[in-house]
Amino acid sequence: MSFWLQAALFLLLGHRTMALLFPLPQTVTSGNTVIAIGNSLDVIFKVQGSIPEDLAAAAERAVGYVTESEHYYLSPERGKEFLLDNDLPVLTALEIILQGSDYGTIASEVSKEAGERREAYKLDIPADGGNARLTATSSLGAFRGLATFEQLFYGVPPTDDGKAADLLSPGSQEVFGQRIRYKAFSPAAPYHIEDRPAFPWRGFMLDTSRHYFSKETILRTLDAMALVKLNVFHWHMTDSQSWPLSLPGFRDLAEKGAYSARETYNEEDVGEITKYAAERGIDVVVEMDMPGHTASSHHARPELVVGYAREPWTRYAAQPPAGQLRYMEDDVTQLMVDLLGKLKAHIPSAYFATGGDEINENVYKDDDRSQATLKRKGWTLKQALNAFMGSTWQALQPKIPVVWQEMVQEHRVDSLPDNAVVLIWKSSKDVSKIAKLGHPIVHVGFDHMYLDLGGGGNIIPPLGKKEPSWHAHPFNTWYHIYSFDPYKGVKANQRHLVLGGQTVLWSETTDETNVDSKIWPRAAAIAEIYWSGGGDNGFPLDPSKALARFQDLRYRLVAKGVSATPLQPHWCAIRPGSCEFI
Amino acid sequence: MSFWLQAALFLLLGHRTMALLFPLPQTVTSGNTVIAIGNSLDVIFKVQGSIPEDLAAAAERAVGYVTESEHYYLSPERGKEFLLDNDLPVLTALEIILQGSDYGTIASEVSKEAGERREAYKLDIPADGGNARLTATSSLGAFRGLATFEQLFYGVPPTDDGKAADLLSPGSQEVFGQRIRYKAFSPAAPYHIEDRPAFPWRGFMLDTSRHYFSKETILRTLDAMALVKLNVFHWHMTDSQSWPLSLPGFRDLAEKGAYSARETYNEEDVGEITKYAAERGIDVVVEMDMPGHTASSHHARPELVVGYAREPWTRYAAQPPAGQLRYMEDDVTQLMVDLLGKLKAHIPSAYFATGGDEINENVYKDDDRSQATLKRKGWTLKQALNAFMGSTWQALQPKIPVVWQEMVQEHRVDSLPDNAVVLIWKSSKDVSKIAKLGHPIVHVGFDHMYLDLGGGGNIIPPLGKKEPSWHAHPFNTWYHIYSFDPYKGVKANQRHLVLGGQTVLWSETTDETNVDSKIWPRAAAIAEIYWSGGGDNGFPLDPSKALARFQDLRYRLVAKGVSATPLQPHWCAIRPGSCEFI
Repeated sequence: MSFWLQAALFLLLGHRTMALLFPLPQTVTSGNTVIAIGNSLDVIFKVQGSIPEDLAAAAERAVGYVTESEHYYLSPERGKEFLLDNDLPVLTALEIILQGSDYGTIASEVSKEAGERREAYKLDIPADGGNARLTATSSLGAFRGLATFEQLFYGVPPTDDGKAADLLSPGSQEVFGQRIRYKAFSPAAPYHIEDRPAFPWRGFMLDTSRHYFSKETILRTLDAMALVKLNVFHWHMTDSQSWPLSLPGFRDLAEKGAYSARETYNEEDVGEITKYAAERGIDVVVEMDMPGHTASSHHARPELVVGYAREPWTRYAAQPPAGQLRYMEDDVTQLMVDLLGKLKAHIPSAYFATGGDEINENVYKDDDRSQATLKRKGWTLKQALNAFMGSTWQALQPKIPVVWQEMVQEHRVDSLPDNAVVLIWKSSKDVSKIAKLGHPIVHVGFDHMYLDLGGGGNIIPPLGKKEPSWHAHPFNTWYHIYSFDPYKGVKANQRHLVLGGQTVLWSETTDETNVDSKIWPRAAAIAEIYWSGGGDNGFPLDPSKALARFQDLRYRLVAKGVSATPLQPHWCAIRPGSCEFI
Repeated sequence: MSFWLQAALFLLLGHRTMALLFPLPQTVTSGNTVIAIGNSLDVIFKVQGSIPEDLAAAAERAVGYVTESEHYYLSPERGKEFLLDNDLPVLTALEIILQGSDYGTIASEVSKEAGERREAYKLDIPADGGNARLTATSSLGAFRGLATFEQLFYGVPPTDDGKAADLLSPGSQEVFGQRIRYKAFSPAAPYHIEDRPAFPWRGFMLDTSRHYFSKETILRTLDAMALVKLNVFHWHMTDSQSWPLSLPGFRDLAEKGAYSARETYNEEDVGEITKYAAERGIDVVVEMDMPGHTASSHHARPELVVGYAREPWTRYAAQPPAGQLRYMEDDVTQLMVDLLGKLKAHIPSAYFATGGDEINENVYKDDDRSQATLKRKGWTLKQALNAFMGSTWQALQPKIPVVWQEMVQEHRVDSLPDNAVVLIWKSSKDVSKIAKLGHPIVHVGFDHMYLDLGGGGNIIPPLGKKEPSWHAHPFNTWYHIYSFDPYKGVKANQRHLVLGGQTVLWSETTDETNVDSKIWPRAAAIAEIYWSGGGDNGFPLDPSKALARFQDLRYRLVAKGVSATPLQPHWCAIRPGSCEFI
């Protein structure tokens, strides 16, 4: 194709040839040259010491993803319009340059406290082929750059007659009657990207108690998280419905409390999942919610729980079955201390979540034994809670506790370390009250961040009865999540307390059958808030400006095997700008 | 197990041992004997003529389903509690008795008009083993009985250590330390069931234009529909976003209007789908929506369409892209007449849907050529529409037209035959106005029946702009759908006009990735309204009384490979009655 034809094409298509990155890097400059990848792409490490093993593996995966991708450019021609020229500049290698000598591994960086992780990187892709250069001071930073690198490329689409690339000679593809020799292309080289996160805690929470999720599903979720630079997998492991955690010495808890022998996580599973996550830049923060949300421990150890499945459940719990830890008893405290001491050895994270939401005091008020013990010890319920929780946090040292907001707001548990992270869930508006208490805070307000809402309740109202407002809460759309302002209600001198945010999936009405579509692409919406930040215009961000990039991400996730929900008719998806709000 | 122990167990478990059938048959009596199926179950036909081939195949499938099922009883022990006795009465055969001589095939009955199909059956399963008896006067009736038969049985659950049945010797299963020899069981024999549908039209509509759905997905959906006795698959085949239909002489419409060469249905696909459906008691009512919702035909035949993708789309269409048939032109009329004449030969149904919703008159008002033609012919827009639609219905004879409500309410198209079926979608409340017009009516009111709502809009509002109320409409939960009253607003002397109802899935935000969870189990909710009817208490039905049966159905669908959405935490699902509204 002549230069002039190419130039005319780019003028015509110009609005489309932006880098469709999600989350948006801090700075991106791009050009208008199509650059291709041929049959292979080498990875060249430039490091002062040894090549970090997990980064080398991640680079191999990134190259595999780019060269084998079935994610096609979102246009009616699915990218063929960029491939008219059979003589495109070809990228031959990706140089990964780790500056200094303390770059470590990805996993070693992830195991640090949130604020200490080095995630910055620079990426240059020249317009004339040759080597791309990814530069960072840490393996984790380079890993973040690999996610950006991946997102710059598109697979060569199948031919019009539906023949997939692999039916033709390797690395060759018939396009507009020509055979071309590319595996992938990027539409807008040269790229110069400088990037770092705006916030250190960008999370997603999965509840594996109300329904069980397989290891495969969790690993697939971690891969999707890594693609959008989410870095905290908050694993709400146990709850009142089932106890899937199986550890030596405590296997009976899962044997009797899990849904089945197969629906469990043992120490090997936890090890595999935390390692897989760490190698993908993700910190797994395990939660053993207590003293509420523990009824399922009753099946193996009835002595732990008061009020198991007691009715009417509305008096004793937020949802069935009722039942909470007898936290005023010494043996219960000791058992939980032993269990946490055991569990923490299996978890590389600097954090551990002890939960603490929705404690129902009626359970204890209506229980003679609880009352007798409190009287004997001369404790109020709050004093007993303070002592119990203090013991658990002691047992977990040096891990930093992560707690739901009730622990500091309602129960004022003063045994909580000052550096404990507080999750604000009851309302985003509560941030103004919580911030005063001085703890690092993470936004998980149900009004924006709960991915489970909007499908109706799981407690079915009989005919003529009105659904509780909680159950009738609207679906949190991706654009509603995206337009959350993490600084709303936060004073200027408290902004440093905002560690980040998380979407949350409580699994009342989610299991393996629909988990991907509940999470994705919505969980990615916060990646931009907490990675990219507010930029010059500040928060909230405008979702209509992110749509084209979010669409690209959605199809990219599907090509990775993640069943992310479509956002618009396919007609709209392949015609950015054609289905706009008027 | 002793008789007394068994009796005590049944007393204890009595509330659970009901027949968990969905939809509920007209009359069911059941007992308290557990009956089993051994390694095999014979099918014995008692017929005066030849055995209907499609019914014989359906019976084989039903037996396969029952004997290989991985659907387990919903209790904490997953049915093991019914299998303590290693000497249960065993069912050896299913007798299928077709009375009279004009029982026909399933497919032949399905091809009749809705009100003429014979769907009644009787089913007897004795408590002492031997033969079950299924009796009907038509193959279709017997097929409905097979769906009921299937739902009475549960698979033998895996052992506690997670070993699946197939790891043990065939037909044997280790349960509570015993090896038992059953493949399946039913908890509450003897059963005596007499059944027939309350309404003849029980449908589901899938939109295959906004996103394409594979043949496999459609066939899987048909199987799920058959399980709950839904009998109309309304196939919204074409729309403005894509034109997947590829027929000889009109292949260009799909070649240029489909999303890709692979995302099409040719005459073989249509044939396979309609045959598969008919053999499962389902009438496929194909819709080619017109004259609106046709913009995708523009790609191959620009002469057909006025105002393709004209902006601002809000002036010219309900959603992008704009574009409607030039129905005042003779050549356009002729082409559609030819196309419909061709298409109808491929469709066994007595019905064909020509749609007719959301016609936008601005498209024609702002088009000089349209105005010139109207002037030349001395027609108003309504007269032109009447002539055009009359020609299409003529071409489709003897098929009965199915139209959206605008055709009779807004456009008053008097060329419409009196027996045409009208779909009421704009509001359930419109039934009082439509019923006056005397057409048979089918309820598809968006306020109950639209499965696509509740996930937010597909046109993304920019920051600070409010979402249109349509997009912000709440999710239609299964219990909201279930509590629809088909007679509300219908006078006593108009009740005979209510042919039935349909749920509807417009596919703006649904594709292969999430289709099952959007449809199921919600689409089944109307099966009870329109099969079981209001019974002695009349409508609306109370969903809280259906929960246990609906849960059983949900897990049954999952065991069939349909990713139906969970309704409650698994803890609740296996403990019917434990998570009730208080």
